[in-house]
Amino acid sequence: MSGRLTVVGLGPGDPRYLTAEAVAALGAAQALYGYGPYLERLPPRPGQSRHPSDNREESARAAAALRHAADGADVAVVSGGDPGVFAMAAAICEEIEAGPESWRALDVVFVPGITAMLAVAARIGAPLGHDFCALSLSDNLKPWDLVERRLDAAASAGFVIALYNPVSRARPWQFGSAVQRLRWHLPAATPVVFGRAVGRPDESVRLTTLAEAAAVPADMATLVIVGTKESRVVLRPGRSPLFYTPRAAAEVNA
Amino acid sequence: MSGRLTVVGLGPGDPRYLTAEAVAALGAAQALYGYGPYLERLPPRPGQSRHPSDNREESARAAAALRHAADGADVAVVSGGDPGVFAMAAAICEEIEAGPESWRALDVVFVPGITAMLAVAARIGAPLGHDFCALSLSDNLKPWDLVERRLDAAASAGFVIALYNPVSRARPWQFGSAVQRLRWHLPAATPVVFGRAVGRPDESVRLTTLAEAAAVPADMATLVIVGTKESRVVLRPGRSPLFYTPRAAAEVNA
Repeated sequence: MSGRLTVVGLGPGDPRYLTAEAVAALGAAQALYGYGPYLERLPPRPGQSRHPSDNREESARAAAALRHAADGADVAVVSGGDPGVFAMAAAICEEIEAGPESWRALDVVFVPGITAMLAVAARIGAPLGHDFCALSLSDNLKPWDLVERRLDAAASAGFVIALYNPVSRARPWQFGSAVQRLRWHLPAATPVVFGRAVGRPDESVRLTTLAEAAAVPADMATLVIVGTKESRVVLRPGRSPLFYTPRAAAEVNA
Repeated sequence: MSGRLTVVGLGPGDPRYLTAEAVAALGAAQALYGYGPYLERLPPRPGQSRHPSDNREESARAAAALRHAADGADVAVVSGGDPGVFAMAAAICEEIEAGPESWRALDVVFVPGITAMLAVAARIGAPLGHDFCALSLSDNLKPWDLVERRLDAAASAGFVIALYNPVSRARPWQFGSAVQRLRWHLPAATPVVFGRAVGRPDESVRLTTLAEAAAVPADMATLVIVGTKESRVVLRPGRSPLFYTPRAAAEVNA
């Protein structure tokens, strides 16, 4: 007998972002695995076991969930945002590839969710309205010079840039360095939005410019979107400004 | 008196992808605007008017919805996928910027949705597991040499590439040309997935390689994800293969 593993995207944190598919998957699971604070967001359910783990233990969590599913259980691994974007889905695939043959026989289902850049973009207008990229600033799993090369490539070709994991306690200087690098390619007035804990009670959304961005506090719960030189800010009396990137683009003259 | 405009992401088409926030917004609206086939997916609701329009009329649709909201109504504009990703949100912002001052006073809310690349990725594993970009192949609103420059920048820097709007009747050669261009940077065996109409009865998901990709049929309902040279395919006896991009990356030696 073989079980099932469902990798469920919870979105940015508030239940309003849950899809119908995610709600159904969470209801059907016999066991939930995930980062402790994500599991705490979900109401307890009789007969459903919970297996919280720490933030940096993605591989161990993936392997534990796969073992449990291979024992015949219906197991869900919860993931913040979308599981496929800097989250649990790749860790699950890595463990399946490296693990015992029986894990390849498992029914594995990925349930997409609202990833942070979509939620932050929705709060401020349409900054991702044109071609864009998503880049993790963490250099835990790639060399910093590769991050720099990607910042250069994206900014010089006119992509909007969504920066995941901008700052952590172990990575205090990288974000400032990235902003400085982007200034080689983009005007000082380029709009930048910082979205933190979107959809949660302590949500904050702050619009600034590339010239000012390095001084804005950020952490692992922050998602930063850097516009292009075509991005616009629309001021609205009595309302928060809109930041958007037009659908049309001329040639980039970088 | 001033109304409200909500721009609602429907996700890829099946109700399972709707978020709780989107369901609430659709229920509250007095008038729905959108591309005809998107409106047809939604159950009729007494007292709610419908204003379908054609696919290429984003600006006119946005202006009509804004006028209606400025008359005091609670208006929703529906958008496939996520409204902020090659969809209605940027068109709304453009019209607000260009339109009468009264449109800036409106309460405008953007409701994020599951964009096609997240849904297609979830169907095949975790192809977006590392840094990635989203690029529309339509050259209706930007010159083709800018598309080529972005393909070069993204592929040579090691981004996974999600291609929106790969082919239309008016753009028959662009996709083949883009694939050829990507072959300058990426190995022939680079995994590529074609996802069409994901979540709908006629869904198809097809895994191939960059060498074979130009021969695969695609249209405006197709989303294509091109991996990196680090992307992996995991074969599974009796199950469909997984395509994923590992979380870790070494330096790119392009």
